[in-house]
Amino acid sequence: MMQEQIYSYNQLYNFTQKIFEAIGCPQPQAVTATRVLLSADLRGIDSHGIARLSGYVRLWEAKRVNATPLLKIIHETPSTAVVDADSALGLVAGPFAMEVAIEKAKNVGTGWVSVQNSNHYGIAAAHAMMALENDMIGISMTNASPLVAPTFSIQKMLGTNPICVAVPAANQPPFVADLATTTAANGKLEILQRKNENAPIGWVQDADGNSSTDANILKKGGALLPLGGDREHGSHKGYALGAVVDIFSALLSGANYAPWVPPFPAYVPMPEKQPGKGIGHFFGAMRVDAFRPAADFKKDMDDWILGFKNAKPLGQQKVLVPGDPEREMERLRREKGIPLLPAVIEDMKNLGEKFGVNL
Amino acid sequence: MMQEQIYSYNQLYNFTQKIFEAIGCPQPQAVTATRVLLSADLRGIDSHGIARLSGYVRLWEAKRVNATPLLKIIHETPSTAVVDADSALGLVAGPFAMEVAIEKAKNVGTGWVSVQNSNHYGIAAAHAMMALENDMIGISMTNASPLVAPTFSIQKMLGTNPICVAVPAANQPPFVADLATTTAANGKLEILQRKNENAPIGWVQDADGNSSTDANILKKGGALLPLGGDREHGSHKGYALGAVVDIFSALLSGANYAPWVPPFPAYVPMPEKQPGKGIGHFFGAMRVDAFRPAADFKKDMDDWILGFKNAKPLGQQKVLVPGDPEREMERLRREKGIPLLPAVIEDMKNLGEKFGVNL
Repeated sequence: MMQEQIYSYNQLYNFTQKIFEAIGCPQPQAVTATRVLLSADLRGIDSHGIARLSGYVRLWEAKRVNATPLLKIIHETPSTAVVDADSALGLVAGPFAMEVAIEKAKNVGTGWVSVQNSNHYGIAAAHAMMALENDMIGISMTNASPLVAPTFSIQKMLGTNPICVAVPAANQPPFVADLATTTAANGKLEILQRKNENAPIGWVQDADGNSSTDANILKKGGALLPLGGDREHGSHKGYALGAVVDIFSALLSGANYAPWVPPFPAYVPMPEKQPGKGIGHFFGAMRVDAFRPAADFKKDMDDWILGFKNAKPLGQQKVLVPGDPEREMERLRREKGIPLLPAVIEDMKNLGEKFGVNL
Repeated sequence: MMQEQIYSYNQLYNFTQKIFEAIGCPQPQAVTATRVLLSADLRGIDSHGIARLSGYVRLWEAKRVNATPLLKIIHETPSTAVVDADSALGLVAGPFAMEVAIEKAKNVGTGWVSVQNSNHYGIAAAHAMMALENDMIGISMTNASPLVAPTFSIQKMLGTNPICVAVPAANQPPFVADLATTTAANGKLEILQRKNENAPIGWVQDADGNSSTDANILKKGGALLPLGGDREHGSHKGYALGAVVDIFSALLSGANYAPWVPPFPAYVPMPEKQPGKGIGHFFGAMRVDAFRPAADFKKDMDDWILGFKNAKPLGQQKVLVPGDPEREMERLRREKGIPLLPAVIEDMKNLGEKFGVNL
């Protein structure tokens, strides 16, 4: 039986870029898609990284991903734009749209871009963090296929709809909050499935809306729960946040929304109704010095971050600032390599054989 | 013993306006402050309405509220501004800043305004909803004095830091999500205190960070918990959202942040450190037609809203769209009046005697 194996970032980078080129992506887009996809592996969000590479390829095989898209702005004002991603990989559409937002922020202080006709875009942080080097706050969100039941419902109406906000500091590392608007992201549930373990109460419900600890319940008609878990613990707030992500990503752009967002697995049939095009994202960039001198803001951010790092901890715990665990993971994995599960390696080997690329 | 009594909106309006005028507010500002304050009573957020009127007056008596402020923009770009509220009532600063955001959105598509040197601004929805009549999405958030312990901490570092997003529709009523970034808002805890009831697990912790059901635990060194409740249920997400509100409201404006936000009760001493000025808010306005024709967007919003209203319910429950309960409450209270608790009526009578205003 195969064991978990360690690969260097460069090994995975070369392989992934070649696969994207093999399906027809122009080299610059293959490079962008590779950087975004593997940022998940570096940051420890293993569910959203190279483990999904074969899934993206299957979407291309199903003609749902266009490897040579013509991305274009179809509507704009000085501070806003809507981008038609022409069925691009979301891994490509995200950076394109984020660049538009950053350019607009340079001109008028902030930029806000909603994207239609796209596909899964990897981790939200990969896009929002592009703002940081420009001394801007970056915002990134996306809708996703329906796995989540709103409060008081047994119907899956929303995706895990993540939000990322990235904020630059001076000498401290940036604040990077990247969160699914559910109690737990689907990736966390998949880890429990592989380990054959139960989910905590508050993560999922069964097909009848009863509380459940079955990590496989989504395959049996169950649903993920909005952040909060149940009404008494504020699930209506998680539901509202997921709804805002859907509205900004899809209703502002003209993408599919709510239960009609196309599924990631290519074998899952498309929803019968298509109120818009593809899936939707939303990006924002705010120039810090559109509000205050950047040096003043970043000095205060350092003070803010140190205040939280030094807040009185609960027992032996350490108070974390959003982004700390992922940055520590990235440091470690850049140095020691990225461990991959046997199933992921097998999948990559099959991909490599199909396209004549050596891992 | 006095019973709960019903007052008409107009009775409370006239009384409140006269009190604000009695402390020196110019009439237009008194009218604005009254509208914002009482919108909480209309919408059923009783903790943030007229029950707080005497608290605002005490802040004025303590010279922390300036009844004749000179509100001004101290920094701006085409899509952004920072407003110095000159120690105004937040009830006045909020609408001023929201108007700036709306004007900027008219010009360049969106407007984003961060406010320093302000005070408590009532309910977040009162401000965000100003965008609706302009076919804009409205966003409103504020920091607040520290009651919330971040994940893995026993120190109160953040306020309940609410976020409101208001979205216009066509024939359906608007989507209005207004949520504290904690499991439960402090007002909910106050209701339990009055009823002498326990809080559910996940709302608060004690001074040592142990889970607690004591609704009075904040007076004993305890803290409210971020949305999610504990790490396993995503409290790091609620903490991150509350942090984003603090950063947008205070670090972008130059207001006080984190544990240094001034307390609402005038008798609580000011924090020893004052890294900025007053408390901070953040407002946004996005013109819908800066993205898509407003009619297309609003038609899709109607479809979105009806989709959720008709989602398969859990048993006899009804699936709600954010804003539904508050709107229903407003309809009811405009028609039947607003019930006030004896303690609130007593407080108002004392205020009325002090300033020679009849209730």
